[in-house]
Amino acid sequence: MNHGKRLETVQKAMQEKGYDAFFLAMSSDLQYLSGVLRQPHNPTDDDKHGDELYGAFITPQKGPIFLVPRMGASEYVKAQAQDKPWIEDIVVIDDGDELDKVATDILKKVGNPKRIAVNDRLWARSLWRLHQVTGDGEFGNASEIIAPLRAVKDQHELAIMKEAGSRTDQIFGAVLKQIRLGMTAYDIAREVDHQMILHGCTAGPSFHTGVSVEGEGLRQHTTPEGRSVTPVQPGAVISFDFGVIYEGYVSDFGRTVFCQSMSEQYKLLHDLVMESQAQAIAAMKCGQVTAAELNRIARKVIEDGGYGKYFTHRLGHGIGIDVHEPPFLYELDDTVLATGMCFTIEPSIMETAEIRVEDVVQVTENGGLPLSNFSRDYLII
Amino acid sequence: MNHGKRLETVQKAMQEKGYDAFFLAMSSDLQYLSGVLRQPHNPTDDDKHGDELYGAFITPQKGPIFLVPRMGASEYVKAQAQDKPWIEDIVVIDDGDELDKVATDILKKVGNPKRIAVNDRLWARSLWRLHQVTGDGEFGNASEIIAPLRAVKDQHELAIMKEAGSRTDQIFGAVLKQIRLGMTAYDIAREVDHQMILHGCTAGPSFHTGVSVEGEGLRQHTTPEGRSVTPVQPGAVISFDFGVIYEGYVSDFGRTVFCQSMSEQYKLLHDLVMESQAQAIAAMKCGQVTAAELNRIARKVIEDGGYGKYFTHRLGHGIGIDVHEPPFLYELDDTVLATGMCFTIEPSIMETAEIRVEDVVQVTENGGLPLSNFSRDYLII
Repeated sequence: MNHGKRLETVQKAMQEKGYDAFFLAMSSDLQYLSGVLRQPHNPTDDDKHGDELYGAFITPQKGPIFLVPRMGASEYVKAQAQDKPWIEDIVVIDDGDELDKVATDILKKVGNPKRIAVNDRLWARSLWRLHQVTGDGEFGNASEIIAPLRAVKDQHELAIMKEAGSRTDQIFGAVLKQIRLGMTAYDIAREVDHQMILHGCTAGPSFHTGVSVEGEGLRQHTTPEGRSVTPVQPGAVISFDFGVIYEGYVSDFGRTVFCQSMSEQYKLLHDLVMESQAQAIAAMKCGQVTAAELNRIARKVIEDGGYGKYFTHRLGHGIGIDVHEPPFLYELDDTVLATGMCFTIEPSIMETAEIRVEDVVQVTENGGLPLSNFSRDYLII
Repeated sequence: MNHGKRLETVQKAMQEKGYDAFFLAMSSDLQYLSGVLRQPHNPTDDDKHGDELYGAFITPQKGPIFLVPRMGASEYVKAQAQDKPWIEDIVVIDDGDELDKVATDILKKVGNPKRIAVNDRLWARSLWRLHQVTGDGEFGNASEIIAPLRAVKDQHELAIMKEAGSRTDQIFGAVLKQIRLGMTAYDIAREVDHQMILHGCTAGPSFHTGVSVEGEGLRQHTTPEGRSVTPVQPGAVISFDFGVIYEGYVSDFGRTVFCQSMSEQYKLLHDLVMESQAQAIAAMKCGQVTAAELNRIARKVIEDGGYGKYFTHRLGHGIGIDVHEPPFLYELDDTVLATGMCFTIEPSIMETAEIRVEDVVQVTENGGLPLSNFSRDYLII
């Protein structure tokens, strides 16, 4: 792990930009700099005493000093910190502690910083607390300093992401073997999430697993609550969009499979989507293309084929610790692609069914290197 | 649904506090005021173009005007809004839109507010964007205005929460029937989440389902990744902590079950925990007790029994749209309990295993009314 080097780089940037400290909530930014794997969100908001201050301070002189609620967080962070000598300290917030005092004490401990940069998803209430306690503090955006570092993965990160991609391929293969007539999108998605565990990934996907069962002329069945229970049946088009978490990094993957047969029209759309992805991947050479240009290259294939209006989203997004992270492959982003960046390349045509493909692809000197490699041929099951 | 009334109340409070508008991100606060069920977080951060402005403005004169990213949000909000005439408008943010312009346009549309209150978990980047675009805008905390309203549930909300509690009981009963020797905590938790779907709840729990398999003298087995795979075996203590989402409201529930036998010591601890919960529930009379006092009542039972140091957390928390919401049953909260408030009552003793009970309990004139009612006797399976 290169956390010493990452911290040094960020501490230097901090000084150059005139910041006395970073305060990062428990987040992907903090994971990147500390090596402490972020604790996942709950589906509805939980609220532990002190969690508005759950995170860490980093100063130009000192590594992460964590501030952690006792309940549901302190044991976790202590365990994570055990093999990480660059973590300076862990301060526990007890249920009875007044948060103004907690904030005052920690600020004193890190030298009463006045110019503080914070992660850009920090809660307003956290920011207000820091404003109140610092009095005349000024606050800036730490994420925009960290994002360009996170965008370019080092060898250690690339090795993990390659392993995540490889396990994703295996998971998909295992799921395909389980699909039977009559299963619903929910049944299949549940199997996807289960296979993640069986393949040694973190429990829980990197984003809510997406499976759809559609197809021309296929009648949709839904429960009274609006959940699709359309059964897999001959002619169905089953489309996948899922990703794992593995050692703190994620994958994001897509394929479309066809039940028993595949119409000529679907073959045409499938060919277009694959050609679009192939042209984008080939163009992913270090220094040779911008995010916006890459989007245009892939889009042109589908537009020239006459289906431009059914490709309704950006070509893809940066990926690493988060499933979506900068840069983004769309018109507004003119980042020049560089070796070590990783993007999803995910063209689609959504006409009578979702025909899509998606892989995480690493930028190299010679073009893109896909980190997942399940067959891109017609998949008829 | 009483959204018209809720909006009126909040619009009046807005004027009294001198705010020109609220801006609420897609959140439980916005769900409460608009009736649009919040979209759940992904386990790792996603980033759609425009999602820092995903939410709604409400002014003293106008109901919610939603601002929604096209990708992954606009179809959802449009569908949710269909039967809600109090929603004034939905403005879609396209992938190519400059966000400063989007923010400027929406502010103009709502009368260029200068004093704006926002939800307290709004991202720093959202707040910065609004600061930048309003120039001399002042920002305050909308959540502290909304929280006391949310704390007291109306009849419609109580009916939903009662149904959520009843389905939770049924889910737990169904899970107990599936437990076999050799299953692990993961297997059981997976069954819990599956039963939620089968019982017509929203897919996915209100917080990560907690199941532990422990017990005095029971050897713990873990995978190389640190996941517990201790099998259910005679003498095991299986402890549950889970909740559903049902029609936008949540439950939170706990019981402890014993495999084949239960030692005298466990019976003693179980009795203490149940007595602690029973005394707290009896004391939940409108106007008669504060949050801090209730915590003390329950804690005293376990302290008097000699196990105070093993009851390591607050007695419980408010619950409704979020799994944890104010008020909180601990030393720092002196809210007086009022009819219609709902709290978890969840004493525990964590010595050689987690002996716990948890139910959502509604405050009434005559004491607490539990919304889940699975047996509190010794559960030996």
